[in-house]
Amino acid sequence: MPAQANVRAEISALIEHKDLPALKKYLEPWLPLDLAPIIADLPIEELAALFRVSSREVAATTFTYMPLEAQRKVLRALSQDQVAALLNALPPDDRTAFLNELPLDVAMQLLAMLTPDELHVAQSLLAYPEHSVGRMMTLDYVAIRPEWSVRQALDYIREHGFDRETLNMVYIVDEAGHLIDDVRVRRFLLSPLDRPVRELMDGNFTMLSPIDDREKALELFQKFDRVALPVTDENRKLIGIVTVDDMLDVATEEATEDIQKLGGSEALDEPYTTIALSRMVKKRASWLVILFLGEMLTATALKYYEGELEKAIVLSLFLPLVVSSGGNAGSQAATLVIRALALGEFKLRDWWRIMRRELVAGLSLGVILGVIGFLRITIWSYVFPNTYGEHWLLVAATVSTALVGIVLWGSLMGSMLPLLIKRAGFDPATSSAPFIATLVDVTGLIIYFTVALFIMRGTLL
Amino acid sequence: MPAQANVRAEISALIEHKDLPALKKYLEPWLPLDLAPIIADLPIEELAALFRVSSREVAATTFTYMPLEAQRKVLRALSQDQVAALLNALPPDDRTAFLNELPLDVAMQLLAMLTPDELHVAQSLLAYPEHSVGRMMTLDYVAIRPEWSVRQALDYIREHGFDRETLNMVYIVDEAGHLIDDVRVRRFLLSPLDRPVRELMDGNFTMLSPIDDREKALELFQKFDRVALPVTDENRKLIGIVTVDDMLDVATEEATEDIQKLGGSEALDEPYTTIALSRMVKKRASWLVILFLGEMLTATALKYYEGELEKAIVLSLFLPLVVSSGGNAGSQAATLVIRALALGEFKLRDWWRIMRRELVAGLSLGVILGVIGFLRITIWSYVFPNTYGEHWLLVAATVSTALVGIVLWGSLMGSMLPLLIKRAGFDPATSSAPFIATLVDVTGLIIYFTVALFIMRGTLL
Repeated sequence: MPAQANVRAEISALIEHKDLPALKKYLEPWLPLDLAPIIADLPIEELAALFRVSSREVAATTFTYMPLEAQRKVLRALSQDQVAALLNALPPDDRTAFLNELPLDVAMQLLAMLTPDELHVAQSLLAYPEHSVGRMMTLDYVAIRPEWSVRQALDYIREHGFDRETLNMVYIVDEAGHLIDDVRVRRFLLSPLDRPVRELMDGNFTMLSPIDDREKALELFQKFDRVALPVTDENRKLIGIVTVDDMLDVATEEATEDIQKLGGSEALDEPYTTIALSRMVKKRASWLVILFLGEMLTATALKYYEGELEKAIVLSLFLPLVVSSGGNAGSQAATLVIRALALGEFKLRDWWRIMRRELVAGLSLGVILGVIGFLRITIWSYVFPNTYGEHWLLVAATVSTALVGIVLWGSLMGSMLPLLIKRAGFDPATSSAPFIATLVDVTGLIIYFTVALFIMRGTLL
Repeated sequence: MPAQANVRAEISALIEHKDLPALKKYLEPWLPLDLAPIIADLPIEELAALFRVSSREVAATTFTYMPLEAQRKVLRALSQDQVAALLNALPPDDRTAFLNELPLDVAMQLLAMLTPDELHVAQSLLAYPEHSVGRMMTLDYVAIRPEWSVRQALDYIREHGFDRETLNMVYIVDEAGHLIDDVRVRRFLLSPLDRPVRELMDGNFTMLSPIDDREKALELFQKFDRVALPVTDENRKLIGIVTVDDMLDVATEEATEDIQKLGGSEALDEPYTTIALSRMVKKRASWLVILFLGEMLTATALKYYEGELEKAIVLSLFLPLVVSSGGNAGSQAATLVIRALALGEFKLRDWWRIMRRELVAGLSLGVILGVIGFLRITIWSYVFPNTYGEHWLLVAATVSTALVGIVLWGSLMGSMLPLLIKRAGFDPATSSAPFIATLVDVTGLIIYFTVALFIMRGTLL
């Protein structure tokens, strides 16, 4: 493939010379998928020229592969008639996705350009809530009647199936359009032509409702290994289908949301590289501020122990180490539990089993860190005498005992809080990180000073 | 659906009464998918009875839906002949997945029970590295010749296609088996029967190599919206296909790995709820210890500032707050950048663009937290006079100035370190969290005390 810059230069030159036949010929071997990113940066007049010479089908496909900004540029560049032609040629689900990105008034203007049929399609898709199955479904499917023969079905498909989004599944409906079954196209291919469609049915199918959340669709696709699932209304009437290729995007987007939330931010809902800076700062600031307000409690707690700190300044040296170890253990446990919850590995009523596991795990991890901490202080005190004063052994005992307690506490909080938060009806991925960080840090301090008061009373304190 | 316990009791009763015909009849309406989890807990003799009365096909499908432990129980319960029949009836890719879970010697024993044909299939799948395309591919595909007519192709599919994993794509090969094109079955359905296959081809297809990583396959599936992709050897000979339903699992597993790594743990590679506790503790301890060793540098840094701490004990009150804010900002930025990298949103050479964005974002976030910190100390000092001494204004200035610097620093490190780590050839998700936590905490302390020395010199310090 020639370098993008060369291609752009070549296209620009052809447009400048108004050599539209040569331009058409130059574009012919390109796939819309490859062409879209290359032409996205072209000036607006050149984009308009490009879309005018392309066939309606190629133009529509190329359009679906372009970034939103470039799509809007294209629409500004084209005449009303050309926009209408392009919009009408777009696949319904891509058109919905595009319209959803636009401000409402712009979307309405564009909707007005659709033919009555396409408008009906677009409106029915847009009426469903965001992230619902209704937004993702396509109305291009093949529905046939159970009393037909395989030959009739294949003939029907051959005649009517050209625009259909997926031909891997055929839907069997009664005269009122109620879904009776879905059958893989392969079964039609593998059956004698005179067999009735009814005999190919196994009555085994799964339906989605248009108001189902897309996460539910994802779950069903993963469970049933289907390439498409039918969407029906409350009367079981077939109203559309959802295809598996859209599910890959859903799986990726849902994971991205969870990852961003676990990272202590609101979900960006837009690519990191293109989201407006002000919008990103807003989404990041909200949780950062909540975390900050929570962490302020550490200053309050420390103020309470100010007297101890003054007497044994050595305690403050290990403050960040001890506190952050609890935080690390907590976020580790929380991440594992939240992901396992998202994957449906266990139910809330299994909390006791999780807690028992985390008790053992947290204790083991705490002992490991405690031993290392003890060794560190001991070795330093031998190698650099007087680093931690004459009572270094007490310091070592305090730090390592506190570590065991704090890591155990962090693991328990990290694993149990997400369950509580889910029980209360909130998204564990959203709310756990800040609560755990705050809770573990503040209580970690209290554990640290309590252990210190116990071990050092009469000597340092 | 009746409650699981009832079903199990019913099955047990029928087996106890040796009423195998009634058992067979009772099981008939069940789908393997629904049956598998219910029977997984049955005692070993009852499982054996169940598998003996089921048809070979139903037994094999039920087997694929059972958890690994139950699968092993079934194999122990059956006779050698029955095991051989079951293994030979399993779909090749499910068999590979199962064999991969077993210890090598057990897997080898089982391999020996396969028919020569199935053994060949299993071995060729097992020879590929873990997480490679070769491990996921199935050898059940339909390959036809370009000189055939559509009618010949459809007849061939009708005759030979019964065992094929996917019939959505048909592969066109030359006489030596080299892949020439892939064509959707729908095109065959939509074309006149006497049209030559050659005319249905568009020469536009994408291949995978069996040693490609499954992440690459996922990327291609997402880019091209295909239900199956062909796998070819170095000579472009067709050796298998990979289907999109397996990709949904890959997308979920890869996201789980990244989430667990970002949470400061090794990827568990097993469900959280079933992994052996010792193995989980090992995987969690490794990173927790590395983090701990890194965080020890905070004790070293604080030792260096012990004199300042002694003079102004008030500084230690805000130590955890200031340090953890830097850590939060850093992990937030790192999470966003690592996910954007994983999604291919930008390339390493775009680092300067990312850095510019993080400069602005980090500065804004730092100023927001700085202002809140300043207000907190000011208000407290008015409401509870003498909390932070007579120089509370200097304390407020120190904390808020340090916050701006530390949050900015955290955002920059959080966004740039993953890029450096990726540049060095490592997985940014694995290695970033500990490095960023350590780096931001230690440098955060230095920033804090440097600001303090600058602002408080001559008064508190």
